[in-house]
Amino acid sequence: MSIKQPDVYRFPASRKVHVSGRIYPDVRVPLREIRLSPTRTADGLLHENAPFRVYDTSGAHTDPAVQVDLRRGLPPLRKPWIRSRPHGLITQRQLARAGVVTPEMEFIAIRENQGRGEAITPELVRREVASGRAVIPANVNHPESEPMIIGRRFLVKINANIGSSAVASSMEDEVEKMTWATLWGADTVMDLSTGSNIRETREWILRNSPVPIGTVPIYEALEKAGGRAEDLTWELYRDTLIEQAEQGVDYFTIHAGVLLSYIPLTAGRTTGIVSRGGSIIAKWCLAHHEENFLYTRFREICEIAAAYDVTFSLGDGLRPGSIADANDEAQLAELKTQGELTRIAWEYGCQVMNEGPGHVPMHLIKENMDKQLAWCDEAPFYTLGPLTTDIAPGYDHITSAIGAAMIGWYGAAMLCYVTPKEHLGLPDKRDVKDGVIAYKIAAHAADLAKGHPAARAWDDALSRARFEFRWEDQFNLALDPKTARAFHDETLPTEGAKTAHFCSMCGPKFCSMKINEEVRDGMKKKSAEFQDGGGKLYVAAAREEAAHE
Amino acid sequence: MSIKQPDVYRFPASRKVHVSGRIYPDVRVPLREIRLSPTRTADGLLHENAPFRVYDTSGAHTDPAVQVDLRRGLPPLRKPWIRSRPHGLITQRQLARAGVVTPEMEFIAIRENQGRGEAITPELVRREVASGRAVIPANVNHPESEPMIIGRRFLVKINANIGSSAVASSMEDEVEKMTWATLWGADTVMDLSTGSNIRETREWILRNSPVPIGTVPIYEALEKAGGRAEDLTWELYRDTLIEQAEQGVDYFTIHAGVLLSYIPLTAGRTTGIVSRGGSIIAKWCLAHHEENFLYTRFREICEIAAAYDVTFSLGDGLRPGSIADANDEAQLAELKTQGELTRIAWEYGCQVMNEGPGHVPMHLIKENMDKQLAWCDEAPFYTLGPLTTDIAPGYDHITSAIGAAMIGWYGAAMLCYVTPKEHLGLPDKRDVKDGVIAYKIAAHAADLAKGHPAARAWDDALSRARFEFRWEDQFNLALDPKTARAFHDETLPTEGAKTAHFCSMCGPKFCSMKINEEVRDGMKKKSAEFQDGGGKLYVAAAREEAAHE
Repeated sequence: MSIKQPDVYRFPASRKVHVSGRIYPDVRVPLREIRLSPTRTADGLLHENAPFRVYDTSGAHTDPAVQVDLRRGLPPLRKPWIRSRPHGLITQRQLARAGVVTPEMEFIAIRENQGRGEAITPELVRREVASGRAVIPANVNHPESEPMIIGRRFLVKINANIGSSAVASSMEDEVEKMTWATLWGADTVMDLSTGSNIRETREWILRNSPVPIGTVPIYEALEKAGGRAEDLTWELYRDTLIEQAEQGVDYFTIHAGVLLSYIPLTAGRTTGIVSRGGSIIAKWCLAHHEENFLYTRFREICEIAAAYDVTFSLGDGLRPGSIADANDEAQLAELKTQGELTRIAWEYGCQVMNEGPGHVPMHLIKENMDKQLAWCDEAPFYTLGPLTTDIAPGYDHITSAIGAAMIGWYGAAMLCYVTPKEHLGLPDKRDVKDGVIAYKIAAHAADLAKGHPAARAWDDALSRARFEFRWEDQFNLALDPKTARAFHDETLPTEGAKTAHFCSMCGPKFCSMKINEEVRDGMKKKSAEFQDGGGKLYVAAAREEAAHE
Repeated sequence: MSIKQPDVYRFPASRKVHVSGRIYPDVRVPLREIRLSPTRTADGLLHENAPFRVYDTSGAHTDPAVQVDLRRGLPPLRKPWIRSRPHGLITQRQLARAGVVTPEMEFIAIRENQGRGEAITPELVRREVASGRAVIPANVNHPESEPMIIGRRFLVKINANIGSSAVASSMEDEVEKMTWATLWGADTVMDLSTGSNIRETREWILRNSPVPIGTVPIYEALEKAGGRAEDLTWELYRDTLIEQAEQGVDYFTIHAGVLLSYIPLTAGRTTGIVSRGGSIIAKWCLAHHEENFLYTRFREICEIAAAYDVTFSLGDGLRPGSIADANDEAQLAELKTQGELTRIAWEYGCQVMNEGPGHVPMHLIKENMDKQLAWCDEAPFYTLGPLTTDIAPGYDHITSAIGAAMIGWYGAAMLCYVTPKEHLGLPDKRDVKDGVIAYKIAAHAADLAKGHPAARAWDDALSRARFEFRWEDQFNLALDPKTARAFHDETLPTEGAKTAHFCSMCGPKFCSMKINEEVRDGMKKKSAEFQDGGGKLYVAAAREEAAHE
C-alpha cells in the first residue's frame, strides 16, 4: 500500500537532492532540483543554465530511493538526534537557551537557504528559537518529520487543514489529503477531525507525515464528552492532551485566552463566536459560570507540552467572523491574554505561537500584527487569512490570500490556508490544492516584500525563462507546472509552440517579447555603429549608465 | 439572434430595478435587487429582511423587459442627453468645468450610492470630473453605454480585456465574452483584437456593450502597416484614431510617454519591454532614430479625442514585466512624462487617466501610487494588477489580485484584470469569469479599506445571513451565487440542509455557529435571571456596554 502515483506525484524535470550538514553529517536536507534548458544567445550559441533548487515539503513520498508503505510509515529520521540529546533538555527552546545548536537547527538553516547563499546560519536559527521569536514544532514522538521553522526572520510558512467530520470523508481520504497538501507545499498540516476514528486517523497521518502535525485537542475531548460541551472536564481534556502528545502531535491549539468575562463582549457582534474551539469553551463557561479551565489549568498544560516538546498555538477563540467584527474589544482582549499565556509557557521551556484572525479589512490588518508583536513579546503570529471581504463564498482562498500576503509582509510567520470551500463545505483534494497554491503565492509574495535573502531568485529564474522563450523552463519553474503547461497547450498544443518565440496572446506578429528582442538587437547594432565611429551618443552612454546600476 | 441564455445569464432571487433621477427624470439607473428570506428569531417569529440592491454592470442583456437583438444593438439611452448639450461643450470635463451637471453625472451618483444613502451627490461627481480626479469614459458615438465613473472618491472599477488574435477566437466569441464579463461585473471592457476583422468585431462589441469600451489603436494601425512597426506613419495612426473615435470607442490607450531616450534604460532589465504597444513604439523609434510620434503629435491627438470625448488612458509602455524590473528608472521616467501629457490633454478639455504596472512586489506598490498622484496631478490611476510574484503562471489572477487590492486601497481608481491564462494563452469564458471575480474581490476589498460609504453594507448583509443560517441568502448575496451553492451541495445536497443550522464543515454536533446560538440563548437566560433578581452582574453590564458601542 503506497501513496505514490507515478504521474500525479511527480514534478516535471525535477529530482530530489539532499544537502548534507557540516555540524551534523547525518543531516540530509531534501530540496527539489529543477533541470533547466540552455539559453540560445543572439549569435546562436547555447549557454547552459544551472539547475534551480526549491524548498521541498513532500518528504520521502516523492523520493524514488525510498519505498514508503503507509502501514509502516516514513523512516524516523530524527530518532538518533532525539536520543542523543543532553540530559534534561527536551524542547528546542530549552536546547536553544542552553546554547545547543541541534541537528534540527542545522537542517533548518540549510533548508531555508535552498542552496542560495548562507544568510541563514544554524546559530541564527538557535538565537531566534531561544528568544521565542521562532518555533520548531517537533514532538519527540514524531521523529518522521523533517525539521522546519516558524518565525518572521524565515520563509513565511503555510498550514493546510484537513480532517474528517461526522458528515463526510474517511481515514484514507485524510491521509491522502495530507500527502497531497505537502506535495504542493504545505509546511504543516492540522488534523481537525471531529468524526469517529479520530485517534486512528491521526495515527496514520502522523506516521506518514513529513511535516509537523497540529491538532485542536478539545475536539477529541468533546467527542469523548458525547458532544456536550457542558460535560467536558479537566481530567478528560488532560488525558486527551497526554494521548495526543504521546502519539506525536507537534502543536496544539489551546483556546486558553477565552476568558469568561470576554464572552459577553461578543453579544453585540454581527457573527458572534465563529471559532469552534472558542464556542465550545464559551458554552462550557456559561453552563458552569466558571472561568475557562484551559486558563486556570494552563500551567499543568505547560508541563505536559514541555515533556514532549509540543509547541503551543494559542488559539484565538474570539476571532472575528466577519468584516463587521474585526479588531473589536473581544478580539483584542483575548490577544492580550494570549500574551500573558505566552510568557507563562516560556517559563516552562515551551515553544509558543499565537493564532490570529479571521475576517479583517485591509486597513485594519497592520493593527493586528503590531499589537500581537507588542503584547505577545514577538512570539510568531499564525493567522487564518485574514479574509478581506465577506462577499465571495466559493472564492475565499482569494479573499484571504490578499490578507495573508499582507500580514505575512507585516510579520506573520505562518498562514493558515483557506480553501474555496470555506463557509460552504469540506475541502476535497482539488480544494486542498487550490488552497495550498493560493497560500504559497501569498507566502512567497510576503517573502519578497520582507526581503528574505533566498526569495527573489525564484522569480528571477522564472522571468528570465519567460523572456528567453524557454517555455519548458517557465512551466517547470512554476508553482504548479502541470496547470501552466495545460493552459498554454489549450491554445497552442504543438511541440513546436514550446520553442516558438511568441505565444497565443498576441500571435507571431505582435508579440512584445519578440519585438523586444529586435529592439535589443537594434540597440546593439546602433551602439556598435557609434563605437566604430569613435562617437558616443546618448544611447550608448545611457546603456553604460544602466550597466553601472 | 440574442445572447440571452435563460439560466446562465440569470442571477437567482434577483430582479432588475431602476431608480429615476431627480434632476433628469429620464435618467433610469439599473440595480440588481436580491430578495432575502425572513429571519427566524429565537422565539420563532419571522422578521422580514428588506431586499438588497447591488451595482449592476450587465445592461439590458439581463433586462427581461428589453429584447436585445445583437444585430441591432442595445437601445441608445444617452442619445437625447448628448443631443441636448450646451453648444460647444463636448467632453464631460468641459461640461463639468462649465458648471454643468450632466445626466451622466446624476446617473453615476445614483449608481454609486446603490440605494444606500446619498453620500455621492451629482455635484460631487461634477467636481471630481472638473478637477481631473475622475473620468467618465463616454464617447458621444457610444450612446448605448450606461454612465460610470473612474476616480478614487468612487467605487474601485475593474476592466476586462478581451480580443481576438491571429492565433485564435472569432468575432462572436468576443461579443459573448464582453457580455459575459459585464454579467459578472466588468465596469469597462478593452477590445485588444489584433487579428483580422478588427473593425467589424469592434463594431459588434460597441453596439452591444453597456459599458465603456477601450482600445489600443496602435494595434490596428500596425495591422494596416502589414505588421511592420517601422512602416507605421502618423497619417496611418491618425486615420485609425478617427475611425475608432467615430465608431464610439470610449477610451484610447496611447503610449505617448515612451520617449526615445528612455528605451536604452530598458537594456539592463530582466524582461525588457513587455508592453505590446511599448515594444511597437520602441521598434519604430529605433528604426527611424526619431522621437516617438505619439509624443510629438500629442496635441493633434488631443484634438481628435476632444471632438468625440474619447478619454485618454496614457499607456505605460515601459511597465515592469517582472519583479526584478519594478520601479526602475525606465518605468519612473515614463510616469513623469505621463504627467506632462496629462496636463496637455487637460488643456484641450480631454479626460485623462494613467496606466500603471505590471509586476511589483508588495513593498514597492505604494511608491507607484504616491508618485503617480504627485507627478500626474491626481489623475485616475488605472493599473494592471500589479502581480506580486512571478512564480505562479496559471494563477496570476491571484498573484495580481493581491497587488490590485492593495493599490486600490492606496488610491488606484480602476484595476485591469489578469486572468489565470496570463502569460500562457488567450482567456476563454471560464478564464474571463475567474479574472472578473478575482478583481471584483480586489476592488471591493479596496472599497472597504478606503471607506466607500456604500461598500460595507454588502459584507454585513451576507455575514448576517451566514450567522442566521439563511443559506439561500448567503448563496444569493455571493459574488457568484451558483458556485457558492454548488460547493455547498457537493457535501450536503438535500433541500433540508439549506435550512439546517449547521453545515458539512463541522457536522451538527460541532458547529460553532450553532453552539454560538446556544451561547447567546444562555447569556439571555443568565441575564434575565440576574435582572429578575434585581442584581446586575458583569455579564449584563458588559452587554449594555457593548450595546453602546
